[in-house]
Amino acid sequence: MSLVVVGTMAYDSVKTPFGQRDRALGGSATYFSFSASFFTDVKLVAVIGDDFADEDLDMLTSRGVDADGVVKLPGKSFHWKGEYGYELNEAKTLDTQLNVLSEFDPVLPESYKDAEYLFLANIDPTLQRKVMDQAKNAKLIACDTMNFWIEGALDELKKTLERVDILIINDGEARMLANTANIVKAAKEIRAMGPSTLIVKQGEYGALLFHGNDVFSAPALPIEQVFDPTGAGDTFAGGFMGHIARMNEEKLNDRLLRQAIIMGSAMASFTVEKFSVDRLKELDRKDIADRFRQFKQLTHFEDLSDQI
Amino acid sequence: MSLVVVGTMAYDSVKTPFGQRDRALGGSATYFSFSASFFTDVKLVAVIGDDFADEDLDMLTSRGVDADGVVKLPGKSFHWKGEYGYELNEAKTLDTQLNVLSEFDPVLPESYKDAEYLFLANIDPTLQRKVMDQAKNAKLIACDTMNFWIEGALDELKKTLERVDILIINDGEARMLANTANIVKAAKEIRAMGPSTLIVKQGEYGALLFHGNDVFSAPALPIEQVFDPTGAGDTFAGGFMGHIARMNEEKLNDRLLRQAIIMGSAMASFTVEKFSVDRLKELDRKDIADRFRQFKQLTHFEDLSDQI
Repeated sequence: MSLVVVGTMAYDSVKTPFGQRDRALGGSATYFSFSASFFTDVKLVAVIGDDFADEDLDMLTSRGVDADGVVKLPGKSFHWKGEYGYELNEAKTLDTQLNVLSEFDPVLPESYKDAEYLFLANIDPTLQRKVMDQAKNAKLIACDTMNFWIEGALDELKKTLERVDILIINDGEARMLANTANIVKAAKEIRAMGPSTLIVKQGEYGALLFHGNDVFSAPALPIEQVFDPTGAGDTFAGGFMGHIARMNEEKLNDRLLRQAIIMGSAMASFTVEKFSVDRLKELDRKDIADRFRQFKQLTHFEDLSDQI
Repeated sequence: MSLVVVGTMAYDSVKTPFGQRDRALGGSATYFSFSASFFTDVKLVAVIGDDFADEDLDMLTSRGVDADGVVKLPGKSFHWKGEYGYELNEAKTLDTQLNVLSEFDPVLPESYKDAEYLFLANIDPTLQRKVMDQAKNAKLIACDTMNFWIEGALDELKKTLERVDILIINDGEARMLANTANIVKAAKEIRAMGPSTLIVKQGEYGALLFHGNDVFSAPALPIEQVFDPTGAGDTFAGGFMGHIARMNEEKLNDRLLRQAIIMGSAMASFTVEKFSVDRLKELDRKDIADRFRQFKQLTHFEDLSDQI
C-alpha cells in the first residue's frame, strides 16, 4: 500500500566522538523514506534547495521512492549542524539554517492523494494539518513532533493531534507535552488529546506502546559500536509505518503494532552504526530478518507463573 | 536451598512528592530478605542498634527468615534520610548516620556456613570479602556495590569482584566502574574484572543481563502510581537470587537467569507502590504469579523474521 511521508531533506554536519562528516545526507523524510522503502511504496513530500545533489535524490528513487512531491526551490537546502558527546544520547545543536525550508508549502501531487497511510514527520504542526487536508483517503495518520513545537506552538500542535491516529514521540517530550513526570499518566493525557495510539521512544532503552488497554515494552538492541545516532528516530518511524502499510490489515491491532515497533527498532539499530544512511544502503532483506530475530532472542523468557 | 544475605538494616526518613515517612523500616538486607523469603530459606547477616524494634525483626523471622546472624550493638541503627523529586528516578541524600553500622563486623553463625547461595549487598568491599572467606560452600556469589566504593575504594572493590560470580549494578555505576559510556563495552570490561555474569539495572527502563554470549533485555513495568522507589534495587536482587536458590539448578543458564531477572523485576514493581516494605507485606503467591504473567504480556511479540 502507499505511504506518504512529509518532512525534511537536509544536509547535516555531524560530529561524534568517532569522527565527523560535513554535508551528510539527512533530514527526517530522507531517513524515513529510505527505511520504509524496504517494506512498501513510499511517496515523498519535501523541499530541497538548488544545491541538492541529483545523486542523493536518485538514490531514493532507485529504491522505488516516488519523489514527485519533492519541490526544488532557489536557495540552499535545510542545514543542521550538531555534535554528540561521549554518551551519544543527545545532540547539541550548533547551527540550524532553515534556508528553503522556511518557504515549505507542502502540496500533494494528484497521484498521492489516494494514499492510505500518512506520516507527518517533525515539522510545523500547521503544515502537518495542511497535508492532512489534502490526504482525503488516509486511513491511518501518524505524526512526530518535538519540544520546539510543544513550547512554541502548543495550540497549533493540539489541533493537529486531534486528527492523528498515532503519535510517535520521545519520552522527555511526552512528559513535557503532558506536563507530568510519570509516563503512564503522560500517556493517558496525550491520548486524551487525540491519538488513540501512542509510541514513546526511550532512546537507548527502547520504546513503549500504548494502544487500547495494551502496553508493550520494546527493547533497544545494546550496540557496541554506536557511531552516529542522527536519524534513528525517523528510521524507526519508517520501519514502523512501512511494516504497517505493507501488511495493510483491516484494523490496527496489538500483534501488528508490536511487530511494527520491533521492525522500526531493528531498522534504527542499523542506522546508528554508520554516518547518514550509509548503513541502510548496505542492507538486504536477510540482514533485516536476522536483526528482527535478534530482538526476539533479546527479550524472550519462558513463563513460569504457573510454578510460583 | 539456603541463601545468605549480608547488608544493612536501617530506619529511613523518606520524602516523596506523595508523602513522607519517618523511621520507615529499610536497609538493603531488609528489602532483600523480605523479597527472597517468598522463594527460599533466607539467612540474614546484619547489625542493628538497640533502638531496633522487636516487631520489625519478628516480621522477618515470622516469614521464615533466619536472624541468627543479626547482631545488636549498643547505639542507634543505621539511618538514611532522603528525598525524591518529581521524577522519582534518583534520591537526594539529605543525611546518612552510620551509627552501629560503622562497627559492622559480619560473622556467619555456624549454621550459615554451608549455605549454597550468597548475596553481598552494597557494603564495604573489604567486608564483602570477609563474608566470602567464611562461606566456604557457596556455589554462587552475587554482589551489589555503588559509586561511593567505585570512587573511594576501587582497589578493594576489584579484589572483591575477582571472586564474585554475578555483579548487580546500576547503569550509571557500570559506566563509572568501566570508565566508558557504551554499556556493551562497559559490560565487557567489568566481566573481565571477575564476574562472569553481569546485571545492569536501568531503573524505570528495566535491566540488561550479560551472561556468556547471551544478552537479555528485561523491561520494567510501567507503573502509574510509583510512590517510593526506595529499596527497589534490593527487592529486585532478592527476587532474583531467591528464585535461583529455589530452583537450585546444576549450572547457571540463560533460561534460569532470564526468569530470575523477571522475578526480581516483578518483586521490585510491588515495592515502589508503597512506603518501606508495606506492599510486600500484602503479597501472596497469586499476586506474584499474576505480576510475572504481566511481564510476559508486556514484552511478547510474534516473530516474523521468516516473512521479511
